[in-house]
Amino acid sequence: MTQDSLTHLCAYDALRTQPSPIRDICSLVNQPEMRSLAGGWPDPKTFPIEETRRIVVEILEDHEGKVLQYGSTEGLLELRQELARQAREEGDTECQPDEIMITHGSTQGMDLVSRVFVDPGDVVMVEMPSYFGAFGAVTSSGGDVIGVPLDDDGLETKTLAQKVRQLKREGKRIKGVYVIPNFQNPTGLTLSLDRRKHLISIAEEFDLMIFEDDPYGELRFEGERIPSLKSMDGSGRVIHMRSFSKSFAPGIRVAWLSARANVMRRMAIMKQFVDACTNTLGQYIIYEFLRRGLLKERIGLLIAHYRRKRDFMIAQLEKHFPAEVHWTRPKGGFFIWVRLPERIDATELLTGAISRKVVFVVGPPFFPNGGGRNTLRLSYSQVGEEEMEPAVAALGHLIKKSLSRLYD
Amino acid sequence: MTQDSLTHLCAYDALRTQPSPIRDICSLVNQPEMRSLAGGWPDPKTFPIEETRRIVVEILEDHEGKVLQYGSTEGLLELRQELARQAREEGDTECQPDEIMITHGSTQGMDLVSRVFVDPGDVVMVEMPSYFGAFGAVTSSGGDVIGVPLDDDGLETKTLAQKVRQLKREGKRIKGVYVIPNFQNPTGLTLSLDRRKHLISIAEEFDLMIFEDDPYGELRFEGERIPSLKSMDGSGRVIHMRSFSKSFAPGIRVAWLSARANVMRRMAIMKQFVDACTNTLGQYIIYEFLRRGLLKERIGLLIAHYRRKRDFMIAQLEKHFPAEVHWTRPKGGFFIWVRLPERIDATELLTGAISRKVVFVVGPPFFPNGGGRNTLRLSYSQVGEEEMEPAVAALGHLIKKSLSRLYD
Repeated sequence: MTQDSLTHLCAYDALRTQPSPIRDICSLVNQPEMRSLAGGWPDPKTFPIEETRRIVVEILEDHEGKVLQYGSTEGLLELRQELARQAREEGDTECQPDEIMITHGSTQGMDLVSRVFVDPGDVVMVEMPSYFGAFGAVTSSGGDVIGVPLDDDGLETKTLAQKVRQLKREGKRIKGVYVIPNFQNPTGLTLSLDRRKHLISIAEEFDLMIFEDDPYGELRFEGERIPSLKSMDGSGRVIHMRSFSKSFAPGIRVAWLSARANVMRRMAIMKQFVDACTNTLGQYIIYEFLRRGLLKERIGLLIAHYRRKRDFMIAQLEKHFPAEVHWTRPKGGFFIWVRLPERIDATELLTGAISRKVVFVVGPPFFPNGGGRNTLRLSYSQVGEEEMEPAVAALGHLIKKSLSRLYD
Repeated sequence: MTQDSLTHLCAYDALRTQPSPIRDICSLVNQPEMRSLAGGWPDPKTFPIEETRRIVVEILEDHEGKVLQYGSTEGLLELRQELARQAREEGDTECQPDEIMITHGSTQGMDLVSRVFVDPGDVVMVEMPSYFGAFGAVTSSGGDVIGVPLDDDGLETKTLAQKVRQLKREGKRIKGVYVIPNFQNPTGLTLSLDRRKHLISIAEEFDLMIFEDDPYGELRFEGERIPSLKSMDGSGRVIHMRSFSKSFAPGIRVAWLSARANVMRRMAIMKQFVDACTNTLGQYIIYEFLRRGLLKERIGLLIAHYRRKRDFMIAQLEKHFPAEVHWTRPKGGFFIWVRLPERIDATELLTGAISRKVVFVVGPPFFPNGGGRNTLRLSYSQVGEEEMEPAVAALGHLIKKSLSRLYD
């Protein structure tokens, strides 16, 4: 019996779930001398190795066995208290510790959301383009994602309302809207205050949840912080997801989400059977970083670090890319979104780039319903400046070559 | 709008998923002076605080940022290589690193299994009684669990074959058998070699997967190790789940599973959207414990530790429990299964016990299809001997009292 012969035993949703489009790129990234503008991984040079070491030594001494024992499914109480306090300061004025849950990354947050709210055939509305990991979570729960375009103010909420109305008329069950409000992945765009208010009213009008995924919001380089959707929510429709993967480091897989206690309870029941609890060691590390004010200090340094990298990449794009190419100028986060002339296929460009030891992520996987052939995402987060310049120069060269060939 | 009014937006499987029956007990356990024979948590006094501290200091120095960065979805390659070597030594002679995945606890292993193999309405056969966490994983994927009794040799495989044949005749889609072969939770019983062979042949005959959950196997106090189901599997039907929660400590949430590469690939695709990867820090810690031989050394100490605790609890049961009560004598692991006279209700006993500051887990939640009213699980893993004696004495007293009342 061959291995494939067991496929008939697999679940429908498992067969339907496709690998992440950056799986293959991730293996390329590990090749020697490869210059990666691909993954949204933070810069390991910024990781707080020294403080982490000191804190682990101290917590193992102070709390002994507790640091290595199972914890509650909702997460370490001290940490949730600290996060509730922070949420109240940020404008979610009623937030209590029992409205917070610690998760293994925001990836898990969105997976729990999908499992609690998405039945087979249900629809979740998303920005177009948006992060394909969220599409995977919805799809693996049997749901479908339908996209709505963005402009410079983020998700086009008028179009959203029209589309939702139309889909409901067609009999679709729409459960919610997934949105990355700050420095969106992949575009780097931010949802304006007016649009946020409109989105909240649309959720009320059409009886939808809002899944607010905000891993980058703390890394704002310029301009005023815009209140979260969660802080504008009067009826418990918003689930707000945050992560320490960018502000601390991803390798401990600690993130959190907040939602009304009743929704939270359902998420916790699900998490019991998903992984019992988030790793205790990582939660204690984060708690100490928060309690000692080290995280705040660190975020200040990270903002300066990534702002410099963004500026450097924009300067390189201006220098090496032809005038026919357009890109966003993010006010924070990790990503720049590039639109090539329509005649150029980003996937063909990637093939040429790989042979010159440069990788990036092509646009199409970010489009849930097709499109984006001439788009791509560049990340300045992980790559050093010394590699960024030749990488962007090589891409610029390839784009120019392909334009001149097309004009021939 | 009240919070409950959003229930109509929840998914069917989420509404169907019930909280773990030990959730409420867990909160009792944290009350001061409570003596817990309830949870299957390891004894924190055994945790390797000193070595963990030393190893974290060293790995942060040696590998720097890598320890805090995202890792691959399948897990740290060095760790998977080490585990594949160990699996080959244990008799799974062909095991390769690409047949191993690192998970956030075996809880996640069983959740991934359910998501990859269980469609709504599918059936997974389980031991009766068995671990309710696995029932939750199956249920939250829309499946149903159906139980088959155990005797002293573990799962009654003849009854399993009859029941599977009958269910198939009724048109049920049976996907697999979930089994805890060593020192089963909750009974402490072990599946004999003959029964293992029979189970493998049943899986072949009826086209089933086997989900082999083995968190306790390394903690064998006496007798010879029995080969795993995985090592007897000729056709890739067995998914073998192992954990470091008992042999190291649960708080880092590192476990692993092995399966044929093709099945593994589907599990990895699912895990991408579930939590991206297992926490890197915990994986490096376990890798160093394995590489340095510290885990092997530790397991030797744990066996002696828990064997002493088992012996102590059995001695207390013999001393304090009346002759009408029966219990298992596990050859390893954490649990003793107690059968009270039929007239006694374990839930009523628990109410009395709690007022005397003793908790345990009643039997019924371990029975997927009802029953077990007069049964309960005692755990000797976490409680100290000084608390075990008065706790067992109090239970014995309550049982005798209730027997004498019933005889009146």
